[in-house]
Amino acid sequence: MSESTIVLPALGLLENNLLWFVFASALVALLYGAFLAWKVLKEPEGSKEMIAVSQAIREGSDAYLARQFKVMGVFLVVLAVALYLMYIRVYPVSSGLPLGIAVAFLLGSLASAGAGFVGMSLAVRANTRVAHAALTSYKKALEIAFQAGTVSGMFTVGFGLLGATIIFMIFKQDAMKVLIGFGFGGSLVALFMRIGGGIFTKAADVGADLVGKVEKNIPEDDPRNAAVIADNVGDNVGDCAGMAADVFESYEVTLVAAIILGAGVLLDNGFVTLYGGMAAASAMALKLIIYPLLVRAVGVFASIIGTWSVRGRDGDEIGDPMKPINVGFYVSAVTATIGFGLVNFFYLKDPATGNPDWRFFFATLTGIILAIVIEWITNYFTHTENRPVKDTAYSTKTGPATVLLTGFALAKESSVWAIVAIAGTIFASVAIFGGNVGLSAYGVALAGLGLLTTTGFILAEDTYGPISDNANGIFEMSGANQGAGKKAQEIVTRLDAVGNTTKALTKGFAIATAVIAAIALFRSFIAEGGLLATGIQVDLPDVFVGLLIGGAVPFLFSSLLINAVGRTAFFVVEEVRRQFREIPGLMEGKNKPEYNKCVDIVTAAAQKELIGPALISIFVPIAVGFGLGAAALGGYLAGSILVGQLLAVLLANAGAIWDNAKKVVELGAYGGKGSEAHKAAVIGDTVGDPFKDTAGPALNPMIKVMNLVSLLVLPLLLMNFPLSVRSVIVGVSVALVILALWLSKKERITTGGR
Amino acid sequence: MSESTIVLPALGLLENNLLWFVFASALVALLYGAFLAWKVLKEPEGSKEMIAVSQAIREGSDAYLARQFKVMGVFLVVLAVALYLMYIRVYPVSSGLPLGIAVAFLLGSLASAGAGFVGMSLAVRANTRVAHAALTSYKKALEIAFQAGTVSGMFTVGFGLLGATIIFMIFKQDAMKVLIGFGFGGSLVALFMRIGGGIFTKAADVGADLVGKVEKNIPEDDPRNAAVIADNVGDNVGDCAGMAADVFESYEVTLVAAIILGAGVLLDNGFVTLYGGMAAASAMALKLIIYPLLVRAVGVFASIIGTWSVRGRDGDEIGDPMKPINVGFYVSAVTATIGFGLVNFFYLKDPATGNPDWRFFFATLTGIILAIVIEWITNYFTHTENRPVKDTAYSTKTGPATVLLTGFALAKESSVWAIVAIAGTIFASVAIFGGNVGLSAYGVALAGLGLLTTTGFILAEDTYGPISDNANGIFEMSGANQGAGKKAQEIVTRLDAVGNTTKALTKGFAIATAVIAAIALFRSFIAEGGLLATGIQVDLPDVFVGLLIGGAVPFLFSSLLINAVGRTAFFVVEEVRRQFREIPGLMEGKNKPEYNKCVDIVTAAAQKELIGPALISIFVPIAVGFGLGAAALGGYLAGSILVGQLLAVLLANAGAIWDNAKKVVELGAYGGKGSEAHKAAVIGDTVGDPFKDTAGPALNPMIKVMNLVSLLVLPLLLMNFPLSVRSVIVGVSVALVILALWLSKKERITTGGR
Repeated sequence: MSESTIVLPALGLLENNLLWFVFASALVALLYGAFLAWKVLKEPEGSKEMIAVSQAIREGSDAYLARQFKVMGVFLVVLAVALYLMYIRVYPVSSGLPLGIAVAFLLGSLASAGAGFVGMSLAVRANTRVAHAALTSYKKALEIAFQAGTVSGMFTVGFGLLGATIIFMIFKQDAMKVLIGFGFGGSLVALFMRIGGGIFTKAADVGADLVGKVEKNIPEDDPRNAAVIADNVGDNVGDCAGMAADVFESYEVTLVAAIILGAGVLLDNGFVTLYGGMAAASAMALKLIIYPLLVRAVGVFASIIGTWSVRGRDGDEIGDPMKPINVGFYVSAVTATIGFGLVNFFYLKDPATGNPDWRFFFATLTGIILAIVIEWITNYFTHTENRPVKDTAYSTKTGPATVLLTGFALAKESSVWAIVAIAGTIFASVAIFGGNVGLSAYGVALAGLGLLTTTGFILAEDTYGPISDNANGIFEMSGANQGAGKKAQEIVTRLDAVGNTTKALTKGFAIATAVIAAIALFRSFIAEGGLLATGIQVDLPDVFVGLLIGGAVPFLFSSLLINAVGRTAFFVVEEVRRQFREIPGLMEGKNKPEYNKCVDIVTAAAQKELIGPALISIFVPIAVGFGLGAAALGGYLAGSILVGQLLAVLLANAGAIWDNAKKVVELGAYGGKGSEAHKAAVIGDTVGDPFKDTAGPALNPMIKVMNLVSLLVLPLLLMNFPLSVRSVIVGVSVALVILALWLSKKERITTGGR
Repeated sequence: MSESTIVLPALGLLENNLLWFVFASALVALLYGAFLAWKVLKEPEGSKEMIAVSQAIREGSDAYLARQFKVMGVFLVVLAVALYLMYIRVYPVSSGLPLGIAVAFLLGSLASAGAGFVGMSLAVRANTRVAHAALTSYKKALEIAFQAGTVSGMFTVGFGLLGATIIFMIFKQDAMKVLIGFGFGGSLVALFMRIGGGIFTKAADVGADLVGKVEKNIPEDDPRNAAVIADNVGDNVGDCAGMAADVFESYEVTLVAAIILGAGVLLDNGFVTLYGGMAAASAMALKLIIYPLLVRAVGVFASIIGTWSVRGRDGDEIGDPMKPINVGFYVSAVTATIGFGLVNFFYLKDPATGNPDWRFFFATLTGIILAIVIEWITNYFTHTENRPVKDTAYSTKTGPATVLLTGFALAKESSVWAIVAIAGTIFASVAIFGGNVGLSAYGVALAGLGLLTTTGFILAEDTYGPISDNANGIFEMSGANQGAGKKAQEIVTRLDAVGNTTKALTKGFAIATAVIAAIALFRSFIAEGGLLATGIQVDLPDVFVGLLIGGAVPFLFSSLLINAVGRTAFFVVEEVRRQFREIPGLMEGKNKPEYNKCVDIVTAAAQKELIGPALISIFVPIAVGFGLGAAALGGYLAGSILVGQLLAVLLANAGAIWDNAKKVVELGAYGGKGSEAHKAAVIGDTVGDPFKDTAGPALNPMIKVMNLVSLLVLPLLLMNFPLSVRSVIVGVSVALVILALWLSKKERITTGGR
């Protein structure tokens, strides 16, 4: 029986009171979210036609989530049992830990799914209200859209913080072990939602476009296209539910990692010496464990204040919605900085001198700075006004091949700068803590906390995207565009355009949080594994083999996802073609298509396709760990973080560059819509779709899940099972991975054979 | 003053005699190469028209190499002086080492350039002779082409082995240090030739196609296209000279690494204990140092026998040239295996028992197996008969976007299996040597030696590609296709088609050799750096930062190269358009275009564009080493090997998949030539061109150069310079990298502005 090497110090009275404060903040977030939801739902729903379209989208989204939850449910219950059976070998049943971990795992998955569900439920109800409000007021439309988005943010933050605080209160010194289970539950759901949602949204989008725009020459969002509702549903399940679950996960695991690493500083003799003995060092470590929770509590209020300050103004001119959103973000960031500055001032004092130890403030601040830098890089590479998109648009003149080459090369470059920014953040943490390994690892986790302080705001900004996108779609499909004035049309178009920008920005943010969270988890893996002395020596052949395999997995994973979109889109194409063929009068608008058929097809396919990548994310690390050992698993994690980050940014930004290059052409450059240049740009955009909305975003939860799986099996790895047991575990894991590959391969587009 | 931690044992009489045997084998290779050259040049050159075309290609190639050598020359002399000045701080001048290293560096670069030059010179003379021979005999044409290719192989092997043996004879126990200089010279030339040649060949190809095929609707290799000679020149400077220099480098550095790691086993206490004391262990280590040279000597004879057995047969039916080439490869591989088996049997005996220690044989054999596995993977993913290419061809039915997505996803997957094969080789070495770290590192170098035993044959196979490609071009351009019979036409076409296959197979091989060579160098870096005790701990924040930056560099490097091809191709397009506009009667065939103008443009541009990537490959590792320390530089190397390998295979195979998917369509599938499916396939092929012939292959020398630069600066890193000196070095390096980026960025395709 092996014990974890890190033990949390006991909590004092002050810490207990602080925990109640954090608990209260979590409730504030939930209550504020509920209040906003009530406020949005009070607004009028709009015309009968609008309601009908919105209804169809809502039904599709609900049907998708219901099915997704059913598939996940089975998987999660099986895993919870497996976790319990695994952990009764590690901890005594009487400690309550095995049961606690299994239950926390289920609660974590419920919280993550719940955050996604609540956010999406409100988004699909808000869309029609925004479309209706646009008829009369820009201010009203913007505020409804943003407030509905804020509900998603508040519930994500509230669930995350509430869960962590309750676990902390119940399990006290053992909280850390249980928190890993909670984080894993959230992560797994995020993985499912990102993969399933990503396949759904792009298969529907590409399928709808291939028949509608290319074959039938009808515009986007045209009600005669059978896949158009599926396309709108996809925006919600992908961008809204998927994103919320993903960010929930980063929010949770940076907290878990910060707590583990806060306790882990005690493993470093340098730290104990620094504070003149174990007693004082222990007291300081306790502060380091509570500090992350307090930063999170501060974040709740910062996000509320930030979202509150997003205000539109009605007038003759319609304003640029990006401006109030940016103002809101900076209000939120500044409030958060002041907040954790105060926490640092009053709470994080050096026990020897009694003066505040500002290093922790600066480490947290690097996260805020990283958020701004990443936003700047994303904006530089993907905004229509800057050189990369302009150059890519220019290359439409020599055809699609040059569009693809230019965009691909530039996106690769953007990956380089993003990773340099992250490397800079880690380096800053080393510099701040003067090279103390334990503290600098904790500093990286603090950077992650800083990065995620404004989570509530960021999610509001993100969810605003699909809401305004849907509002625009409802406006078109309900026929409101014919009756309404030019101004109402302009309002929905403008809200939608800004939604694209906010989605791109928050996507860059989500990748950065995932990588920082993964790095913090990776550090926790090392601290937990007692590997600090020997380290993960990548010069050892088995660790190097782990590194190579770890780097290969993101390639395999994204390859499977891109192919899955292709296969699924093909089924959609077949169905839409069938409906045009078999439903009389559809093309003339006399009859309606069967939207739900398309939704069903994509829902079923997405569920089937997600099993392969999910199995790979869980069982490859298990095979490496039991096959090559804990150190090789460390190498594996390092390789997967490195390649996962490079690939995620490449895919996300390549998609965004091509999307916006197309927009530049559509605004009139190089011949505008319908020209050869436009056709070239559309090809780039279509290639970019599964890059930026399926494969890229799904890499975030993948690297986090692999890190959490490794943390979870680590106690078992350290028990040194006999070779026979290890062989069985490796054999079963490899068999499951092969099954995963077989599942993903057996379906071919070329069904006809050859 | 710091001494290297590894010292070679003194040579005995037996070893001295063996060195003379190796020396003689090197001479045999050179003499055999010279004999074949004489034999090929004896053949008739063909008609006046053929000679004229061949003459133009030859002049273009010579002009390119002359200019390339001039640019390189300046760079190399500056670096040689820098190396000398650097090393007089490390070793006493009287030891002769500083001068020796600087001179060896220059000799290495001369040998690498010489191998490329000789191979290419013969290729551009053989092409017309092959075209002429095809008029009468398939057997004759095949054999001339393959024998001319063999010249390149023999000179590469001969120069490589001769240089290494002479250095060994002169410097004896210090040979290792000097050999690193020799290897670095060769590597740097390979980097220049790969980058310059890669940009040249694809800019000319893409430029010629964009105007010829797309705008003017004239066939490939049409003499009216001003860029057509540049295109044919490109095949020679890229595939022939570039490849030879690249493989020369792998050939050399695996030898260097094996010698370092052979001596390095003594650092491992386990090894000394194993052989019962220092004396016996030292004797065994000496054998481990000589063994690699003997394996190389064996390889010379295996390659000669293999290439000798490639024979055609004349008859009613024209045979498949791939068959005799495959027979030759297996003859060569089996001969080599028997050869190093005998060396192992007679020479590598366990000093205690006197029995041969077969572990070394098996470790070398894993290299031969790896060659076969890599060939199998490449063949599976890129051959027109297999599922990946068929699926990609099928996706042309839904347009270019699906072609790109399918091919890209499949190429990603091929990367995964290639890296699994390499990981398997490393793991096999660990298993063979029962986990002894020193020996298993040596085992990886032996795998590299095994992989490269058949170098002479592989290069013959590769150089055969551009020769038969050019022969086909000369056949078309000289008008021989009109006069000659159907059979002669079929002979050149078939030889050319097989040339594409051999080029693809050897490309996969080149990447594998580069990665194995880089891994062996990486191990040498650790052994040399005395880092074996602490290792490269990737869990330390600065090492992790090194890993992240190392992984980012291949992304940056390939991004710059892809953009360089785009920019240069744009200049070619402008020039070809100008000639069609300004030269009267060109389109009607009454006047000839000015071929040399296009060659000049691409030559100049390629030279300018290679400076940026070259500076990055040299100075980023220096900045990381002096900025973050030797361990972080180790992390950097690990990251660059991982990402470099993944990206190189992805780019090479994506290009090959699209190329062959296009061929499937051209053979009549989905509408054949001229159909919409064909247009989609052509777009895929155009995107793939710079992937597979510029960015992909250039990554090979890049990872090797970065490893060698690290090995070279390592003694300086270990001297612990004061912060001020290190800051200056880092500052200058970073400034040079920024200069490199600026150089690559200042030229824009969008010269017109906006």
